[in-house]
This record gives sequence, structure tokens and C-alpha cells, in this order.
Amino acid sequence: MRFSTLIKALQQGQAGLKRAEVGGDPLIASAAALDQARSDQLSFLEKGNALTSAFGNSAVGAVLLPDQEDLIAIALERGLAFAVLVDPRLAFAEALELLHPRRRAQAGVHASAVLDERAVIEPGVSIGPRVCIGADSRIGAGSVLHPGVVIYDDVIVGENCELHANAVLHPGSRLGRSCVVHSNAVVGSEGFGFVPTARGWRKMPQTGLVVLEDGVEVGCGSTIDRPSVGETRIGAGSKIDNLVQVGHGVTMGRGCALASQVGIAGGARLGNGVILAGQVGVANRAVIGDRAIASSKSGIHGEVAAGEVVSGYPAIPNRLWLRCSAAFSKLPEMAKLLRELKRSTAQ
Amino acid sequence: MRFSTLIKALQQGQAGLKRAEVGGDPLIASAAALDQARSDQLSFLEKGNALTSAFGNSAVGAVLLPDQEDLIAIALERGLAFAVLVDPRLAFAEALELLHPRRRAQAGVHASAVLDERAVIEPGVSIGPRVCIGADSRIGAGSVLHPGVVIYDDVIVGENCELHANAVLHPGSRLGRSCVVHSNAVVGSEGFGFVPTARGWRKMPQTGLVVLEDGVEVGCGSTIDRPSVGETRIGAGSKIDNLVQVGHGVTMGRGCALASQVGIAGGARLGNGVILAGQVGVANRAVIGDRAIASSKSGIHGEVAAGEVVSGYPAIPNRLWLRCSAAFSKLPEMAKLLRELKRSTAQ
Amino acid sequence: MRFSTLIKALQQGQAGLKRAEVGGDPLIASAAALDQARSDQLSFLEKGNALTSAFGNSAVGAVLLPDQEDLIAIALERGLAFAVLVDPRLAFAEALELLHPRRRAQAGVHASAVLDERAVIEPGVSIGPRVCIGADSRIGAGSVLHPGVVIYDDVIVGENCELHANAVLHPGSRLGRSCVVHSNAVVGSEGFGFVPTARGWRKMPQTGLVVLEDGVEVGCGSTIDRPSVGETRIGAGSKIDNLVQVGHGVTMGRGCALASQVGIAGGARLGNGVILAGQVGVANRAVIGDRAIASSKSGIHGEVAAGEVVSGYPAIPNRLWLRCSAAFSKLPEMAKLLRELKRSTAQ
Repeated sequence: MRFSTLIKALQQGQAGLKRAEVGGDPLIASAAALDQARSDQLSFLEKGNALTSAFGNSAVGAVLLPDQEDLIAIALERGLAFAVLVDPRLAFAEALELLHPRRRAQAGVHASAVLDERAVIEPGVSIGPRVCIGADSRIGAGSVLHPGVVIYDDVIVGENCELHANAVLHPGSRLGRSCVVHSNAVVGSEGFGFVPTARGWRKMPQTGLVVLEDGVEVGCGSTIDRPSVGETRIGAGSKIDNLVQVGHGVTMGRGCALASQVGIAGGARLGNGVILAGQVGVANRAVIGDRAIASSKSGIHGEVAAGEVVSGYPAIPNRLWLRCSAAFSKLPEMAKLLRELKRSTAQ
Repeated sequence: MRFSTLIKALQQGQAGLKRAEVGGDPLIASAAALDQARSDQLSFLEKGNALTSAFGNSAVGAVLLPDQEDLIAIALERGLAFAVLVDPRLAFAEALELLHPRRRAQAGVHASAVLDERAVIEPGVSIGPRVCIGADSRIGAGSVLHPGVVIYDDVIVGENCELHANAVLHPGSRLGRSCVVHSNAVVGSEGFGFVPTARGWRKMPQTGLVVLEDGVEVGCGSTIDRPSVGETRIGAGSKIDNLVQVGHGVTMGRGCALASQVGIAGGARLGNGVILAGQVGVANRAVIGDRAIASSKSGIHGEVAAGEVVSGYPAIPNRLWLRCSAAFSKLPEMAKLLRELKRSTAQ
Repeated sequence: MRFSTLIKALQQGQAGLKRAEVGGDPLIASAAALDQARSDQLSFLEKGNALTSAFGNSAVGAVLLPDQEDLIAIALERGLAFAVLVDPRLAFAEALELLHPRRRAQAGVHASAVLDERAVIEPGVSIGPRVCIGADSRIGAGSVLHPGVVIYDDVIVGENCELHANAVLHPGSRLGRSCVVHSNAVVGSEGFGFVPTARGWRKMPQTGLVVLEDGVEVGCGSTIDRPSVGETRIGAGSKIDNLVQVGHGVTMGRGCALASQVGIAGGARLGNGVILAGQVGVANRAVIGDRAIASSKSGIHGEVAAGEVVSGYPAIPNRLWLRCSAAFSKLPEMAKLLRELKRSTAQ
């Protein structure tokens, strides 16, 4: 694709094209990080990008830049094809879609799929080999089910969803439009609810629903449990990375982002736009306000206010935690000094 | 179902029915949490339940209560149908089973299942689509295998087990009666054993067994490894949540409960009734006594005595940890005070 | 197998046989830990092994020993069959392979497998039931694909690989020779890359590769993501345990070992021979030098020098961390002492 063709497409995009210099209008075959790019590849930079220093020596063919004079000056001096955008990262995402158009799955049901006679398959659905769909389950128009997906009875999948290989949807799963469930993820599994009795743990039946609103994405191997009653709900546009556990009865607002290996215990409530970094844990019935952020490995009990940034376990405000952590590594010195002071005051 | 019918069933149950007032004998269609219940729904309260305050305004149709005068007074005043029980949570579990009877899987082998000719299938087993069963493996009477389950050679599954979609059982897996393996869990996988050599890591063959005693439950995506020699053993009635790792050669007693994302390294030994909260880690060869409890994210080395409650990493007694954690957030102040004291004593 | 036969095999092995006493040349049927071994079983000891004290009373039939006089003396006194080796653990691995020879999977494609017409299957490959292989994917000679494996389009699997049940390989996966992917693992899944926009999270297309060099092993349920551009690379001979997350664009050197539930965020770089214990987290773009070791639950930001041993979160040198952790449990006492000192100096 010529760079000029790409520019025309970016003009229609959301990234805010401000300027374009097509230079020799190079043929762009693919994309790469700036320090590894070849002359037929596209790269991007944004403010504060660690690769900025690589720009002067990069063999890159064309580059998407933020509106930053020093970078534009380098591009001009080197006679590079470039574009200036309000959001060069977003432009790069748009460009990657153009350079690597997704192959549209063919509609139809593979001969090896096993569909219950009471399953409802809307038009334009693609059902791959070895998919199983249970009774009273419905697959929305345009959805794609990759090989080995298992859908139990009583599941609703909205339009244009994509379910990757070997993903499993249990009874009571309710997916909105344009959801993505990645390989080996499990949605709607039984919550971990047991009643202690004299004879041991007795299962609390888990009869509720799991609702994934529109545009939710569930990463590989992640598990979203259904509750005993009521629902587990993931708000529209929330994105969940790999190997995340969402317990029974959790509710999560819109546009949250949960990094890998996060665990959220039963009944916790997250607002809109909450960001949890890797390996964060959230305790039973914790409440996290809108746009709060927890840094990696934090453990959250109780309540986190909207907009707060927390760290550590138990989680405390991030700035305080940074200072406490720095002090932690000084603890042996502090203990020694304390002993000395005690001796000197005892004299 | 009329509330009076439910009451008759609870009389036969284990929850200790002490009193029942059927009021208008409402039709109960399902169950819900007290703050969300409608007039055709059942709820429950127990001592200290956070929803107690919602009771006065709840639209609930009938409620299961502990023997607590204030709650009974409200129920009587509102003319509600209610029952008083020794264990209202257990009664709620029993009621949920009545309200949502499990559809019994039909016995038989789906045409798309692939069974080795040396596999043994006992009577009344239900084998779903695309299940594979290897040579010399045996499936006990009444067990249910959901779609996509893979059973390698040399596996024994006891009676009335349930194996959910895409679960995998490796050679040497030995399941007792009434075990449940949830979707995408893996039992009997090779332990992570490698011998360092001049040429790199050399695999230690993992030739042992994994024994799940009666009533063990393994959560979605959890992995239970087999050891090089001997066995990994999970005691009767132990319950394991999602995404838990149990390493090779671990032994666990009866009635343990492991929350999500717990990791237990090779050779650790857990007694009976041990409870590990979410994301706890247990190191190689650690020993945990009966009924010990570890709070979330704890890391356990060495030994934990029976009945102890531990927290933190490295794990220390919970009460001490609470005080240490509180002090941790005061560390910058402490460091400052220490500097001041040093200055003042130096004068 | 007679012990003398085993000895002959060990002479050809890599473990450095220094001496052998066949005694009554017992028949060895299998192997066991020293404290559980019977007279037809083989065990081993190495320097500092915790089971050394069990040696005197063990019923073991034959034992592999390090060159340690006290152990040899016990073996001689008891008239045991034994061998002395430079590396008795390695010898035990070799012996287990002899005692439990792996059943060679039969070459051929099961009738229920679904292969795209543009898939390339080299000679001697074994493809189990219900395997799916997409277009333009190639399976190297001698590889074994267990039931339910799903290989998307555009995947290359080298020679003599083993893919366990229900493992999934996504487009852009490139496996070298003799790789093992365990059950329910996912290789080449989409990296967790989203661009924040006014309309919510917008997916950054993940168009790169995942390269597993020769001899890499990926544990059950682990996930190795592909990046937006460039590659995620796992160096030759690196071993990854269960439920590990390797983010998009991570590069890892040769011979690394990652224990269970480790999480490595996007773009981190690990050198050769790095060892990460269970539940370690590595942040975005962290850099870990050759042969560095992180103890369990550490959290690594920034840089770790070659050969360093780190612990804690944020990770600090292990020795310092041990002292700091010991001091942590003394924090309440320290705080009390500090208050007292303050009072006494204030007077």
C-alpha cells in the first residue's frame, strides 16, 4: 500500500490527521517498532516514547508522529514520509487494520459441529468444526465461533461476537453485541459457593446469570463465574486480559480494564473505567469507585474512592505506598539506629 | 412452588427448621438477594448479614431467618411468609435445589465421542459430543462427561462424577466418587520437574498418580500435577476454585477449601480443613496444619501450626500482620521521627 | 528390570557413573521416594536431601547415591544394591525413562480430525481425534497432536513437538523442534493492547509472531500473547510451568525456568537462564539479566542485573529483603519504642 493511500484512509479515521508529507510515497508492506523497522514499514511515535532516540537512525519507511517540532524536524531533514496526528497511537491502530485486514470468517455451520435442535442460529453466523451448542441457546447474527467452542443450554450470544477456540459458555451466560471471548476462557461457570455443614462443604446452587454487555472482551483462560442468585455483570466495553478470575456476583461498570491474573472475589463492585494492573486482588464485597487505578499486585479490601490510585497490600494511596516501600528497604538501618538511640538515652 | 411445599421439604433437610409461618402461602418462583427480591421470590438472612437493614423495605415474598427475635418481629409485623432455621444459609441452598432442579443428563454415548476399544464405560454414564476416552480408562456408573472432555489412557473416574466441557484428565488420574472437574481444568498433568545439566534442563519423567478422593471439586482452568513418583492427593470433600495450581506430590487432607488463583508448590502438605484465600502461595515442602487459615495473597514457607490464622509474605500470625501492616503505612513518619530524635540526641 | 541392566544403561547416560554394587541384583519394577520405597523399587539421594535420615530404615531395593562416604557406608552395611554417581538426580531421571518407556504415539491422522486442504502435515505425525488444523499451517515430522488441539491458520510447528489435549495455537505461532505445549495452553493469542479513545478502548491489532525456539515447554493453561508488531520470543530450552502469562512482545533468552502463575507484562526482556519462582510478576519493559533469580511473589520493575537474586515487591536484593522482612514483623515494637524515646527525649 502506498503511504498516500494510507493517509487518505487516516483522514477518514478518528486519530486527527494534522499534516502529511508523502515524500517518495513509499510502498508500505507492514509495520514495526521504530528501532526494527525497514524501509517498507510503518512506525509511530508518541510523546515520551522510549524509542524517540532511535528515530534519527531508523531505517523506517514512514512514520506517524505527534505534533512535536523536534520530531517533525528530524523527519523533514531525513526526507521521510510522515504524518502528524493528534493521536498517533490510534492512527497506528487504524493503519494496522488496513495493512492486515482481517479475513472474514465464512458464514455457515461446519459439518462436524453438534447443534441441539432447539438451538437458534441467526443469519450470517460462522460455526467452526467441533463446536457444540446446547438447547435453547441463541447465537446472534454475524457471530463467529471458532473450533471446539462449547455452549451449554440456555446461553444467549449477541450479534457480531467472536468466540475463540475451546472457549466455554455455561448456562445463564448473556453476551451483548460485539463481545470477544478468547481461547479457553470460561463464562458462566459455577460460583465457588459452599455452605459449611457437619458433613463438610455443601454446594450452594449457582442459579444466576453472567451478563457481558456490548463490546466486552474476556482473555484466554479467564473465568467469569455466575452467582447463586442475581447476576455477575461486566459493563459495556470493559476489557479483561488472560487468566483473570471474576467471582460470582461481581458487578463492573463500563470501560474497565483488567490486566492479566487479576482476581476479583465474589460480590465486589467496580465502577466505570476502573483499571487494575497485573495480579491485583480484590476482596469479597470491596467497592471500587469510577476511574480508580490499582497498580500491580495490590490487594484491595473495603473501599477505594473514585479516581484514587492505590498500591500495595492492603492497598493504600499510591504516593504513600511509594514512600513506605522506599522506607521498607531501610528497615534494618532504622532498627539499628533505634537500638543505638535507646542505648544512648538509657545512659 | 407454594411456600408451604418448600417448608415440607425443608423439614426433611439438614438446616434445622424451628418454626414456619406460611402467611398467604405465596407462590415462590425463584430466589434473590433480599434487596432485589420480588414478591414471588425467596430470600434468606443470617446473623450479621449485611442485607439485614434491607429487610424492612424488601418486596420479598418469603424469607428464611435465623432464630433472632428482631428479625422475626419484622416478618410478623409485615405479615410475611417466613421460616426460622438453625442454619438459614443451608436451608437456602436446599431451597435453591428445589426451585432449580438439575436436569439429569441422559445416559448414553454421543455418536461423535471417540472411545478407545479398551475404555470401560459403566452403566448410566452420559458421554457428550466430542468426548475422547483413551485405552484402559474407566468411567464409573452415573458419571456425566460434558462436550469436549479428553481422558487420556490409564485414568479412573469413580461413580457419579461430573466432568465439564473441555476438561482434561491425564494418565494416572484417579477420581473417587462424586468428584466435579470444571471446564478447562487439567488433572494429572506432568509436574514441573527438570534436572539442570550442562546441556540445559532435562525433564524428570513424571510417572506418579493424582488421586482425587470422593467429593473433590476442581475449578475451571485449575491444574493438578502428577509427581515423578508417588502421588499427588486431594482429600475427600476438598473444594478447589478456579485457576488454582496444585504442584506435583502435594498432599491435602479432607475438607480443604482453596480460593481462586492459589498456587501450591511441589511437595507441600496440607492437613484437614485448611482454608487458603485468593492468590495465596505455598512454597515447596511447606507443611500446613489442620484447620489453618491463610488470608488472601499470603505466602507460606516452612510450617503453619494447626488452627493458626496467617497473613502476609512471609506469612506471620494474622493479628501481628494486621498491626505490622498498619505500622507499614506509618513508615515515612517513623523514619522522620527517627531522624529528628537522632538530631536531638546528637546535640 | 534387573538392577544390573539399569546400571548398564546408566553407563551410557550423562550422570557420571562412578561405582556400582549390584548386591543380589534385585528386580526393579518402579521407583519411589526413599521413605516410601519397597524392595522392588529404586530411589535416589543427593547431597543435602531431606530424606537422607530415612535411608537407614528404608525398604528400598536399590538406590542411586552421590559420592558421599556416610551414605555408601550405610548401603554397604545393609547389603543394598546401589550405584554412586556424579549426578544421582539425573541418573534417577534416566532410570525413570527406562522403567516407564513412553508409548510412542502411532503416526496417522484420526478420522475425526479436521484439516484444511492447505495444511501441510510432514511424515510420521500423529494427529489425534478432533484436532483442527487451519490453512497454511505446517506440522513438522514426528510431532504428536493430542485430542482437541486447535491450530489456527498460519502456524508452524517444528519436528518432534508434542501438543497436549485442547491446546490452542493462534496465527503467527512459530514453534521450533521438540517443543511441548501442555493441555489447555494458548500460544499466539492476541496481546492485550487497546488505545484509549473518547469512545472507549479501541483494539490495537496484534499482527506479530510468537516464536518458541527449540525445546521450549509451555505448561497447562499458560498463555503466550503475540504483539501488535514484531515478535514475542521464548529462547531455546526455556521451560514454563502452568498458568503463566507471557505478555505481547516479551523476549526471553535460553534456558529460563518460570514457575507456576508467573506473569510477565508486555515488552519485558529476560536474559538467559533466568529463574522466576511462583507468582512472580514482571512489569512492562522490565529488563532482567542472565541467570538472575526472583523468589516467589516478587514484583519486578526496572532492571535486575545479571546473576542477582531478588525478592519482594518492589523487588530488592534477596539478602536485604530477608532482613527487611524480619524487621517488618518487629514494626509494632519499633513503633512503640520510638514513641517511648520521643517521650523521654521530650522531657
